[in-house]
Order: sequence, then structure tokens, then C-alpha cells
Amino acid sequence: MITSSTGPRPADFNDVRATNLSVVLRFIREHAPCSRADIASMTGLNKATVSSLVADLMDRRMLREIGFSESRVGRPATMIELDGQPFSAVGIEINVDYLTAVVVDLAGERLFAWRRTFPGADVPAAEAVSAVAGLARRVVNRMSKEGRQVLGLAVAVPGLVDVDGGVRLAPNLGWRDLDLYGDLRRALRDPDFPIEVENDANFAAAAEYRFGAHSGTGNLVYLTGEIGVGAGVVLDGTLRRGGQGYGGEIGHVQIDPDGPTCRCGRVGCLETVAGIGAVLDQAVTTPAEIEPEITQIVRRAQRRDPATLARLTRVGRNLGRGVAILSNLLNPEVVILGGYYVPLAPWLLPVVSAETRALTIAPDAGGLRVAASTLGHDAAALGAAGRVLDGVDSGRLPPSRTTHQPLSRRA
Amino acid sequence: MITSSTGPRPADFNDVRATNLSVVLRFIREHAPCSRADIASMTGLNKATVSSLVADLMDRRMLREIGFSESRVGRPATMIELDGQPFSAVGIEINVDYLTAVVVDLAGERLFAWRRTFPGADVPAAEAVSAVAGLARRVVNRMSKEGRQVLGLAVAVPGLVDVDGGVRLAPNLGWRDLDLYGDLRRALRDPDFPIEVENDANFAAAAEYRFGAHSGTGNLVYLTGEIGVGAGVVLDGTLRRGGQGYGGEIGHVQIDPDGPTCRCGRVGCLETVAGIGAVLDQAVTTPAEIEPEITQIVRRAQRRDPATLARLTRVGRNLGRGVAILSNLLNPEVVILGGYYVPLAPWLLPVVSAETRALTIAPDAGGLRVAASTLGHDAAALGAAGRVLDGVDSGRLPPSRTTHQPLSRRA
Repeated sequence: MITSSTGPRPADFNDVRATNLSVVLRFIREHAPCSRADIASMTGLNKATVSSLVADLMDRRMLREIGFSESRVGRPATMIELDGQPFSAVGIEINVDYLTAVVVDLAGERLFAWRRTFPGADVPAAEAVSAVAGLARRVVNRMSKEGRQVLGLAVAVPGLVDVDGGVRLAPNLGWRDLDLYGDLRRALRDPDFPIEVENDANFAAAAEYRFGAHSGTGNLVYLTGEIGVGAGVVLDGTLRRGGQGYGGEIGHVQIDPDGPTCRCGRVGCLETVAGIGAVLDQAVTTPAEIEPEITQIVRRAQRRDPATLARLTRVGRNLGRGVAILSNLLNPEVVILGGYYVPLAPWLLPVVSAETRALTIAPDAGGLRVAASTLGHDAAALGAAGRVLDGVDSGRLPPSRTTHQPLSRRA
Repeated sequence: MITSSTGPRPADFNDVRATNLSVVLRFIREHAPCSRADIASMTGLNKATVSSLVADLMDRRMLREIGFSESRVGRPATMIELDGQPFSAVGIEINVDYLTAVVVDLAGERLFAWRRTFPGADVPAAEAVSAVAGLARRVVNRMSKEGRQVLGLAVAVPGLVDVDGGVRLAPNLGWRDLDLYGDLRRALRDPDFPIEVENDANFAAAAEYRFGAHSGTGNLVYLTGEIGVGAGVVLDGTLRRGGQGYGGEIGHVQIDPDGPTCRCGRVGCLETVAGIGAVLDQAVTTPAEIEPEITQIVRRAQRRDPATLARLTRVGRNLGRGVAILSNLLNPEVVILGGYYVPLAPWLLPVVSAETRALTIAPDAGGLRVAASTLGHDAAALGAAGRVLDGVDSGRLPPSRTTHQPLSRRA
């Protein structure tokens, strides 16, 4: 006798239709422009169903017809593609001294990016939340003026984010147990779009998986090279966050029990020997201080300054020990170095790769490549915006023919 | 225009039916005994479809009717459950000096387990393959005499197994680049059941996920405590093997760059400071030597022998450093210690847990519990048999009404 409601999810009509809408949408995202017949033949859905699903998605203004195909026998087919124009997906990254917003349309085309300074480490959390909400409001209002519906807002945080969007710990911001999801919903007066809060490395990994040079690589790890070092782990094509969402903290794996003290209070964390602080060989607290220092290091390395090259080799070896942990444990296809590792990549990559191969038991490091990110410092914010699209693609569709109201006019 | 055949998989009639067969089968596995009406109401499939799917599964002899429910209003419903009897799933574990076979029926009930000695480290690979095939043949023939169809054979190997079932490296068996999958298929004369080859820790993790005390825990890691230390990683309810299948090699993560030399040739691997060799504080090569030594250690620890307790504390701390890597990186809900760690658990667990909590940045180790396995040394073979059932549950169904021929009578 059945007593519980667990088990396989019911596959009733609405579910089947939602699944099929999602199948059609993802198919068009990958293969547009294409015809209804193309969709039917490739998805196995029958033509009447495809026509109905396409009509539904057009009613939601997510698709548009773009004329006829001429390369076919018989009647020319009407071609369809995603209609990016009516929609926007907003990603915001909170960093120690700046906020970044990246906005993309439904097709994933970047509409614009804003950056503003933000004394994140020096203000109380409540003020920081106001600043983030203020930026979000400006973006949403601009979208509203342009007639674009906001599909969602996703916010990247450099810290431990739980599965409910709460920030459990963000050492570099001085945050602890902050309900960022709830605070943002309230500050934005319970908007009609979904809000998601996630660790920055996780969103950056999602950006690489969707937009990067290695997009579509099913087993991929992104390493942030900011003040902290964090990992975003994609396995079998999906971001893996662990039971409570706290995975990816490779920066705090103990590499050297006799090493330096970390800002987290522990000793010999990977961050202390392979983070940007170890590259600069001095205590730094803000990116504003780092940028010119990195430029200096690059110049010295280009001049083959022996002390600089030795330091980069040392950091590269330590980073390689961290990458070898990933390699032995997860056998990813690619590990992507982001942030300030990117300008240093010409010197770091060969050392990291060699150390990883030496310390991985699988021959040739199990096929692992180590590469530099091509997405720049916007990766986390871009990935945040992309995750909003992921939500849409997996069935969180905008309603039919609604008009979005600017937030400022709400009660 | 569509030029490639990638994209969402076609959802044609056969696929939909296969998916629905699988939904019904899994529902019955979790909820039996249940009626056709129960299945319809809980899966959302309509009653006619459910009746047809149940008839199909009964034709394959996978289900049976077991009388009527009396606890209902109206007409009594015929109750259905899995019919374990006509089928068997075979798991074999290859270890350094023994082979284990565990056989379960379709319902996952254990039919029997065999263990035979096996000089795995001392014979050429070809002889080892013959021994494994011989054991498999005996099991299959016994099943044949009992009228049970073999649903599949899965073989656990202590080493790096690629996604095609080839053994890339098994240091303790002295194997390198062995096509175990192909060799077994040939030795068994291309049998009519599927064969799978997989790393032992992966199968043990699958056993914990299906049969263990923490079954159903979506984020779970199993650590083998045999001569080697390996991890099987389950994230979001699925075994994660990495790009080439070489994940889980935590035993070869470098813990101490100044540590002892490992059998893999590297220095300071976790195995060298937290494996059973470190517990025994002497070089051992075969389990036959280990068993009585472990018994001695347990006795000494029970007598509170200071040297023994100090050694277990040291090993526990090192193991805790390994578990903290898992914890920081993957945030699992539970890490299960298997093999020889189990009898030592009373002394190891508190130290491992404390060290893990101390070295994990997430508060309270992100909710991680460290526990001893309850499945014993058969875990890998049991998990192998269970993986055969996983294959069936996800649609690799036995054919309708075929009779299985004993292997020995084939050409």
C-alpha cells in the first residue's frame, strides 16, 4: 500500500508539456535557425505537438519567425530563432571593493556590463545589501524603460552560500549568517522575478560551461584567482555544490601544515601558498592594490627577472599541488584558471601542468588540460546571468504576454 | 539549418515507452506491494498505460501479482510486487589475494556469496582473467540450473578503470593497460548479458547508496580501507567518475611532501600515512597477513596500550586530513569508512571527525558525518551486483520470455 508521496515524480499532462516546452526551447537555443519540421524530426515530438509548443513559446515572446528557408525540396519552411529582445537576465557579482552587473538577453547576448566601486569590506552587511539592491534596481529600471522583462536576478558572493541563498561565511567581506536572498527580496519589494544567490566560483564555472572557450565540457573546474582561491565544480554537465552548498573550497585545503596562517584562521591553506597574496609576496587587502602590482610582476617576468620567475615557479608548483588534488579526486577534463591567474598564465600554466601530471596517479593526468580563462573578471557575473537562462531552459518560463512594471512604482 | 545530430535526445514512442517502463519499475521497487491504480495515481500515467506497462513487465517475468488488497473502499485491487525469482545480478570483486562473488535477485535480495583465494599479485594478467571468468562461469551455470536468468555481470577492480572497462593501472595486481572488459567477454564467449568493469571504491559507494545504512543519501563518499585507499564519490545521487573514469584516487593525493614513498612511486600519498600499512606500521602485501594483525591491534587498543592508541590517533589525524579535503571540496553529507577501517572505527572515528571539523572552512564541517560501513568486505561485490540492477531500472530490461542457456553448452 502506498503511504508516502515520494518516488518518481508524476509525469502528468502539465509536466509532460513543461518538459516538452523545455526540450523545444533548448533545441532552438542550440540549433537555431530551424523550422518546426526540423524540431519535430530531431526531438521525436510529433508535428502537431511541436506547432502547439512553438505557438506557446511565441505567445511568451521567446521565439520569433525570421523568414523562409530556401535550401529545401518542396514548400519553403518558416525558420524560427530565439527572440532575445523582450527579455533580460541579470547577474551581479559582489567583490571586496566593487560590484559588477552583467546583463544578457534570452539568447545569451551580452547587453551591457556595469562596474561600481563598493567598500564591501568596510561597511556593515545591511549597507552592503542596500548597495547591491540599489544596483539591481537601476538595472531593472533600465530594462523596464527598454521594454525588456527581467527573467531573474542572480548574485555571486565570495563565500560560503547555502542552498537557500544565505551567506554562511564570507571572510573577505566580514559577513556571517546573512540571509542575503531574503534581504534582497525584501529590499526589492518581492519582485516578480526569481532571485538566486550563489558562490562566485560556482557561477564562474557555470559561465565557462555555457559561454567559455571550453563550453559544453562535462567535467570542468574553474579556479578563482582573486584575493581568495575558490573552485566551481561541474561534473557530468551540472554544477555540483554538495549537501549544503559549501563545496569548492579548495582554497582552504591544507597544503602545508607548517605553512603561513590563512585569513580563515587555519594554517597552510592552499590560498596562502598559491593565491595572489603569494604571487605578490605581500599582504594585500583590496583589488585596487593588486592590479598595478600584477602589472609590475608581468613586466618583470617578461624581462626574465630571476627572483620574479622563481616566485612564479614556486606559486605554480603550489597551485599544481592543488590542481593535482582535483585531478586525482575528480578527473576533470579541464581546469580553468581565472582572475589574476590569467595575466600570469604564460608563466604559471607550464609549471602547474607539469606538477599536476607528476602528482596525478592516472597517466597523463587522466587527460586533464589546464587553461586560462577567456572570460575575464566578469566571469562570475556573466555566469550568474547565464544561470538565470539555465532556469528558463529547464522550465521556469516567463508568463504569457505580461508587461513588466518598474520597481520604483510599486507600493 | 540543422546539420548535426546532437541536442536533446529524441523523445519518440519507443523512448517514451522505455522511460515509462523504467518509471513504473522504479516506483514498484520503492513502493511495492502496490496496485495498478496506486501506480497511476502516483506517477501521473493514465490507467490504461499503466496496465499495458505492467503487462509488459509481467511478460518479462519482472513483476508478479500477489493477491488482493482488502483495505479499500469498493472493488479490491490486485497487488503487484517485483518478482525476484527468475533473475540474478552477479557482482565479482577482484582483490589482491581473493575473488568474491555476490549474487542478488531482481528485488536486491542476496542469494549467495562465494569467496575463493586468488594469487592476484603473483600471476600474469591472462591467468587472472581466466580465474575471474571461471568464477563467473560457475555462478552463471548455477543460476542456469536454478532457472534464473543472469541480468548482468559487474566486476570490481582495485585500480584505474577507464570508461570502456579497461584497466589502465592496478598497482597492487601489477596490471597495466588490460582490456578486462573485452577479455572477459571473449572468455565468457560473448554472453547474452551485459558486462561492466569498474573501480572497487566506486562499486562500494554504489553499494552504500543502494543497500547501506545511509542509502539514498545524495552526497556520499566511500573510502576503502584495504591495502590501498580509494574513494567512491556519489554526488546528487549519482556516481561521479570524471572525464575518463579515473576519479576517486584520494589515496594518491600528496599529504606530506616529506613523507614516505608510496607503492605508486610518488612521495607522501595519503595511503602511506593513513592506509592500513600505516596502521600496522610495517610493510604488508596481502590481506592474509593483515587480518590477524588488525585483530592484534584491536586487542591492544581495547587494553589501552599507549603506543597502539598513539598510532591510531596519528593515522586518524592523517585520515582526517584526507576527509577534510573531501569535505572542503565536495561538501558530502556522509563519508563512510570501509574495509579494515571498520574494526578500528571506535578509535579512528572520533579523531577523524575532529580533524575534519578543524580543517573544514564550513562551520560544523558543512554537516558532514563520518561513519563506519555496515556492509563488510563484500561491499564492492555487492555494489557491483547492485549496479546491474541500476542498469535494469534505467531501462536495460531483460527480453520477454527467453530461456537462458548455460554457457558451457555454447559453441
